[in-house]
Amino acid sequence: MGYSARQLRSTVTAGGQLELSLAMSEVPDPATDDVIVRIEAAPINPSDLGLLFGPADMRTARASGTPDAPIVTADIPGHLMSGVTARVDQSLPVGNEGAGVVIAAGDSVPAQALLGKTVGVIGGAMYSQYRAVKTSQCLAFREGTTPAEGASWFVNPLTALGMVETMRREGHKALVHTAAASNLGQMLNRLCVQDGVDLVNIVRRGEQETLLRKIGATHVVDSSTPTFKEDLVAALSATGATLAFDATGGGTLASQILTCMEIAQSANAKEYSRYGSSTHKQVYIYGGLDRSPTELTRNFGMAWGLGGWLLTGFLQAIGSGKMQELRDRVAAEITTTFASHYTQEVSLAEALQLEAIATYGKQATGEKYLINPNKAV
Amino acid sequence: MGYSARQLRSTVTAGGQLELSLAMSEVPDPATDDVIVRIEAAPINPSDLGLLFGPADMRTARASGTPDAPIVTADIPGHLMSGVTARVDQSLPVGNEGAGVVIAAGDSVPAQALLGKTVGVIGGAMYSQYRAVKTSQCLAFREGTTPAEGASWFVNPLTALGMVETMRREGHKALVHTAAASNLGQMLNRLCVQDGVDLVNIVRRGEQETLLRKIGATHVVDSSTPTFKEDLVAALSATGATLAFDATGGGTLASQILTCMEIAQSANAKEYSRYGSSTHKQVYIYGGLDRSPTELTRNFGMAWGLGGWLLTGFLQAIGSGKMQELRDRVAAEITTTFASHYTQEVSLAEALQLEAIATYGKQATGEKYLINPNKAV
Repeated sequence: MGYSARQLRSTVTAGGQLELSLAMSEVPDPATDDVIVRIEAAPINPSDLGLLFGPADMRTARASGTPDAPIVTADIPGHLMSGVTARVDQSLPVGNEGAGVVIAAGDSVPAQALLGKTVGVIGGAMYSQYRAVKTSQCLAFREGTTPAEGASWFVNPLTALGMVETMRREGHKALVHTAAASNLGQMLNRLCVQDGVDLVNIVRRGEQETLLRKIGATHVVDSSTPTFKEDLVAALSATGATLAFDATGGGTLASQILTCMEIAQSANAKEYSRYGSSTHKQVYIYGGLDRSPTELTRNFGMAWGLGGWLLTGFLQAIGSGKMQELRDRVAAEITTTFASHYTQEVSLAEALQLEAIATYGKQATGEKYLINPNKAV
Repeated sequence: MGYSARQLRSTVTAGGQLELSLAMSEVPDPATDDVIVRIEAAPINPSDLGLLFGPADMRTARASGTPDAPIVTADIPGHLMSGVTARVDQSLPVGNEGAGVVIAAGDSVPAQALLGKTVGVIGGAMYSQYRAVKTSQCLAFREGTTPAEGASWFVNPLTALGMVETMRREGHKALVHTAAASNLGQMLNRLCVQDGVDLVNIVRRGEQETLLRKIGATHVVDSSTPTFKEDLVAALSATGATLAFDATGGGTLASQILTCMEIAQSANAKEYSRYGSSTHKQVYIYGGLDRSPTELTRNFGMAWGLGGWLLTGFLQAIGSGKMQELRDRVAAEITTTFASHYTQEVSLAEALQLEAIATYGKQATGEKYLINPNKAV
């Protein structure tokens, strides 16, 4: 028996090409603790694009194949091939998270309990018509939640919760977030309002500030204005924020944030210390919107840290009890605090159209795509 | 009563000048738990130069005053003045550590016990003939230890111990050290040999490699050679080092270390992960030999950290019991594991000669000065 499922695949070839295509995969009948989910909604997150596009230069993308079985090919700059040795010539499925309906279940009680339910699913390969997953990879939504409403249940909600939780665990009292008008940024604003946490939003354009103010953001700083540095220092002084999450990674933004934190912290210093404030200032890079090198002008004393922040590492660190608590909260607030919005819902084939790729590949604020693998072409 | 002590001073003027000079300071009779130490040896450490020179361009240094009361003046680039606002127009004494003989003591038992003893002292202003300090700022050496042997008892020994202790606390199994042929670097090698800790030494010149091999270093990598990257990966693979202490700070070295750590860690990876190895890789910048910006090419996954490392912060974190244990070890091994070597012993006035400043200001490996504030001019 089993199910045949159409699935989106990404391959990096030894010849230096990226190939995107659709392939059929066999989904077996469910094992005891497994369920089969008909995936009806899966977002294209920035965190999916790394696997989807690899290091390819998508400006070179060209289409071939048929409308029903499109193929997209793009060139990978030679010097970037060494970074993807481990995936060469493997046809990899894509899509971190999604939601759908449980259409078959194994014999176990937890599996049977999910039969017919709308669930969020995590575990990769979500740009597929059907997925066999363990019950622990599922989150059952309340009656009435649709797959489209629940599709982005894991990456953004748990990242937002993870940022606030990291702040508490590491002893900071407020947060800074860059690229703050993103879907995740808006979610983080709702969460911080809910939890009474001060949040400094850094945006890159005036209209993004307007958008965030509209949803109740108090501290919004626009990095494109000449008063950016002063505005940021003022917001950091007002909130006491000494922890930032940076989605961009490259350039000088992380350095500027550390500098402004140091200025805000030193304003209360009683005597000169050539090592700067003794308050630890931390920036975590959790995304790579800007792939250029990170440049630090170290004028922020010695009590600072910069590092990578990865949701999976955070979830491992907090343990399964806390993890369950966070998941339960997501299920309860998936249509409010953790709601996501999309500009397009596309089929698997439509997701491989060059025009679509050019749009969601930009990772522009407000342009978010949702794939429905069971939508007809 | 009390003592009159000649003392070296550093002033940043509102007019944008650095002024180094000698001044007299009054040392009061000792309070109950204080002792008066006649300082006979105080090293010029890299960590003293920040306070001594501030952000001045020492190539502009010129001499005035008299042989007995020399004055050195140098220009401070205008854009660097904002970093030293807190010390403007204050005549600041200099010198983090030193050693000498206790010539007077307060009434307390611990103070009286130090009378006549040769002690190491910490607490600033050590480029002075006499210092009144608390007994807790002193470390009594064994009979026969000279002030010159004990002068560098705190900064380098506790930094070396702190690096190894940080490695253990943060769960790493081996260490990387840059500028590894320095006095501190040689000390760290002796300590690691003693404690059976694998150490990867990064040096900048062939003769530094020779020097380290001579004192028993196993892993020495020369960053000036074309095979640097391969050599570093090999040493990191052999040792499993995922923690580095970088004395330079600027440029691309920290980034290269993280990259090579990632390559060494990924060599054993079973499957491709676009987030890289899940093993945390950490570089601490503890010095600033290179004041240029730090540039990170983030090709080392997401499990990484970069940060400042400051001895005082480390000592606060470990608490007083552990601190005492480390100090006791320094006292026991001050002429072996923690021995320092100097190229020059100079008086206070000699330390302000332009030629001397040009030499110790370079922070060149093997050029280390010792000030004897009680040496005649």
